[in-house]
Amino acid sequence: MLTDQPSTATYTTDWTGKYRGDALAVVRPAAAEEVAQIVTLCAQQGIAIVPQSGNTGICGGSVPIDSRPSIILSLSRMNRVRAIDRDARTATVDAGVVLEALQNAVEEHDLIFPLMFGARGSAMIGGNLSTNAGGSNVVRYGNTRDLCLGIEAVLADGSILNGLTGLRKDNTGYDLKNLLIGAEGTLGIITGAVVKLYPQPKVRATAFLSVASLSAALEILNIVQDRLGNTVEAFEYVPQPVVEVILRHFPQIRAPLSEPANVGILLEVASSRTDDAAEASDGGKALQEGLIMALADLMESGLVLDAMFATSEGQRNDLWKLRESVLESINADGPAYHLDVALPLSRVADFVRIMDEKATELGFRPLTIGHLGDGNLHYALAAADPAKWDGLPLEAMKEFAFDLLAELKGSFSAEHGIGQSKAELLRARKEPSQLAMMRAIKQALDPQNIMNPGKMLV
Amino acid sequence: MLTDQPSTATYTTDWTGKYRGDALAVVRPAAAEEVAQIVTLCAQQGIAIVPQSGNTGICGGSVPIDSRPSIILSLSRMNRVRAIDRDARTATVDAGVVLEALQNAVEEHDLIFPLMFGARGSAMIGGNLSTNAGGSNVVRYGNTRDLCLGIEAVLADGSILNGLTGLRKDNTGYDLKNLLIGAEGTLGIITGAVVKLYPQPKVRATAFLSVASLSAALEILNIVQDRLGNTVEAFEYVPQPVVEVILRHFPQIRAPLSEPANVGILLEVASSRTDDAAEASDGGKALQEGLIMALADLMESGLVLDAMFATSEGQRNDLWKLRESVLESINADGPAYHLDVALPLSRVADFVRIMDEKATELGFRPLTIGHLGDGNLHYALAAADPAKWDGLPLEAMKEFAFDLLAELKGSFSAEHGIGQSKAELLRARKEPSQLAMMRAIKQALDPQNIMNPGKMLV
Ligand SMILES: Cc1cc2nc3c(=O)[nH]c(=O)nc-3n(C[C@H](O)[C@H](O)[C@H](O)COP(=O)(O)OP(=O)(O)OC[C@H]3O[C@@H](n4cnc5c(N)ncnc54)[C@H](O)[C@@H]3O)c2cc1C
Ligand SMILES: Cc1cc2nc3c(=O)[nH]c(=O)nc-3n(C[C@H](O)[C@H](O)[C@H](O)COP(=O)(O)OP(=O)(O)OC[C@H]3O[C@@H](n4cnc5c(N)ncnc54)[C@H](O)[C@@H]3O)c2cc1C
Repeated sequence: MLTDQPSTATYTTDWTGKYRGDALAVVRPAAAEEVAQIVTLCAQQGIAIVPQSGNTGICGGSVPIDSRPSIILSLSRMNRVRAIDRDARTATVDAGVVLEALQNAVEEHDLIFPLMFGARGSAMIGGNLSTNAGGSNVVRYGNTRDLCLGIEAVLADGSILNGLTGLRKDNTGYDLKNLLIGAEGTLGIITGAVVKLYPQPKVRATAFLSVASLSAALEILNIVQDRLGNTVEAFEYVPQPVVEVILRHFPQIRAPLSEPANVGILLEVASSRTDDAAEASDGGKALQEGLIMALADLMESGLVLDAMFATSEGQRNDLWKLRESVLESINADGPAYHLDVALPLSRVADFVRIMDEKATELGFRPLTIGHLGDGNLHYALAAADPAKWDGLPLEAMKEFAFDLLAELKGSFSAEHGIGQSKAELLRARKEPSQLAMMRAIKQALDPQNIMNPGKMLV
Repeated sequence: MLTDQPSTATYTTDWTGKYRGDALAVVRPAAAEEVAQIVTLCAQQGIAIVPQSGNTGICGGSVPIDSRPSIILSLSRMNRVRAIDRDARTATVDAGVVLEALQNAVEEHDLIFPLMFGARGSAMIGGNLSTNAGGSNVVRYGNTRDLCLGIEAVLADGSILNGLTGLRKDNTGYDLKNLLIGAEGTLGIITGAVVKLYPQPKVRATAFLSVASLSAALEILNIVQDRLGNTVEAFEYVPQPVVEVILRHFPQIRAPLSEPANVGILLEVASSRTDDAAEASDGGKALQEGLIMALADLMESGLVLDAMFATSEGQRNDLWKLRESVLESINADGPAYHLDVALPLSRVADFVRIMDEKATELGFRPLTIGHLGDGNLHYALAAADPAKWDGLPLEAMKEFAFDLLAELKGSFSAEHGIGQSKAELLRARKEPSQLAMMRAIKQALDPQNIMNPGKMLV
């Protein structure tokens, strides 16, 4: 238990630096039973509990609000990989295992845990589950929710839910696992999980494409999936305006194509199939040749305008470096408001077109990237002239965006969650019947509202 | 609305014929709004509502209990496929669409809706979702839950939850969709859904294997998946005792192998990849050759003892006919108690060994088949001597099985659900903290208990 200022400071401020809140103490239990004891004590005293894993969440969910006496319950000492079952392809882990540590541990067994995003060196499984994190290979493996077979959790009454099963089928009542996943700590504390593992890819192929349009991109995704099956691991949208910003701030990064790609796509396929890794007629591997042939046909049909195929690990790394420098570059380029939205695949192009038009008209400069294969866009509203940011009609622009999203049946929070930053948005924009249902569940499971108050439902 | 005896009779008796219950009326609304009006009326009058789709459920969930004045709300008139989005690979359907009708409708678009089981000619999407149905290709495509992107539902207060989105990512609050899926009508009525579609396979390969042991079977599954990737669509366990029963009752069916297979596996792989469908050196298609080569290696290593590779559509049909005659054959063979259990993949062999020993000792004759790729066994306890069935210690045997399942962290209801038939089992065997959480949710969302009372939580 930590109570003194300097040692609690890293826990009481969130990753963005925008949110901070005092804690009576930071407690760091070592087992689910200890978590249960802490929750029971807090319930008796009416003290709020803020679960915290890696503290990389970006919605202000992982730190206390000031209006409630709170403790931070850190999962960081619960960092054991409890078991890896190589044949059943599952791992049983404590909630405080760092994502990257799990990935390293399973690699030794020729397996992967596919969840992939920038903060994986600090984010922990408990946080990944509680935010239902997405990332860059959801198109193949799904969100964190889809990677989890069972959980262990401590509920607001201090009882332990022991759902650590590795079962692929279990219809014995309500789906409590999925209710706790994505609940951002407002319904209970996840203390452990059984997650799915996948065989390690034996071959990869990576390319950067300039494609005719956003709708063409969707067509291309379907064609590649038809030809190469479920091998598409990443289908990331990195258009020219973003590439320009990256090149400005990281001069050592090279443009992937000689001509700018208005609609640029980072495409990666991978396979653990033996025959995909076999040598092909051109000396490369079968999957790589398959992709090259598919791209040749796509160029012939005019859907792909230009393509750069990574022929070395170095070239592949350059492409990913480009992709992973996006956020830093946009941040370095001046102030911006970041939307994290999802759309039905068939409405992505409409959304971008209508938004770009409006944003430009109002003096913004849209910088959009996205996990395009999932219809997930990170749409940043920067200023056409950064010096004039303060005078821009940001609220009007946001309302426009959220109205448009509602019309196109999109989501105003695709992967990052609600926390504090989008709690008001949730209240304003979530369908009333769903909001009421959420409130009824919260009230039933945490009548004292001690589990992470001020977040999500407030 | 139907109220007269002869026309309500098919609704008031369930598929097994074991459960029947009177209804004040059978109402057949045509739209979610009408469902909402009916629910509102019933809530005012305290009348219970039993949602019914195809009425093929086998746990007594779809018919009323006699202790409560009830109506049956049949979804059968809500049978419209509202939209098929070919590019986004989704379909939006009414809950009363018959599974097979949806499959036929999407076939025209070269797509499939993969859910597959015997009752697909009558079962409806609303029922599939409410029971989270499994079936024979879960190993590749997941359970019904995994095939659903969004739902529309009417809650117990008559409000409509409009969650018909086709989004692949949406983190705007609790996962209400998965709570309603698998709730067997006790939390609300599903009126519509957006489901995932998949490209139609271009090539299939089917084989019947005699394998060295159940643990060898699991190894084989992993090896085939390593070599052929995510192409395994079925991995069904059909051991010799069951084959014998089938051959006894369906003399026209032929034994798949000349020597009996103690551990028999029906294996099917399929792919929509162009290169898998390309012609191979032996004149067959690449995927078929790939499977033949994998089986040859598996025979060499001793894991596979014998194999029959279906070289024609007729041979494939014969194998599936064998698989699909199981239930009818067991039923024709005398009385039996059917367990529907799931185990972690690594414990399946232990379960079967320990159960077989005990069952035989107590005078039972185990007839086990299973969706082995999911660890899901349909374990039937028949009598060694059918004439002596009544004297057998069935209750003791069941308790033994459920104790063993608890020890091995298995599930006592893998895919069929709870309904009436397993409600007592749920009460006795579900972890108390989970049961309490389920009860709190039910109480919060349906305080009058008008949604399908007497089922699941009773
Ligand atoms: C550089 C960077 C890149 C990112 N990229 C992505 C991305 O691509 N996709 C994406 O989805 N996210 C992304 N994120 C957001 C973030 O990393 C994820 O949300 C991550 O899953 C949070 O994990 P964490 O362990 O840090 O959780 P924390 O920040 O500690 O907590 C997040 C929320 O979950 C709750 N919580 C934490 N642990 C538990 C628990 N054990 N039980 C119950 N509740 C708990 C907290 O109270 C809080 O509300 C990124 C963040 C950064 C900084
Ligand atoms: C021959 C045969 C083979 C089978 N094989 C399998 C198998 O392999 N795997 C498997 O999982 N199941 C199997 N089943 C069981 C059954 O077919 C499935 O459970 C099916 O999904 C039920 O669908 P239904 O439309 O008939 O639902 P119903 O029988 O009408 O209802 C089932 C339950 O769901 C509720 N319900 C129905 N519709 C709604 C709705 N719209 N909203 C809310 N609640 C609703 C009912 O109240 C009831 O509790 C089989 C059944 C048969 C007869």
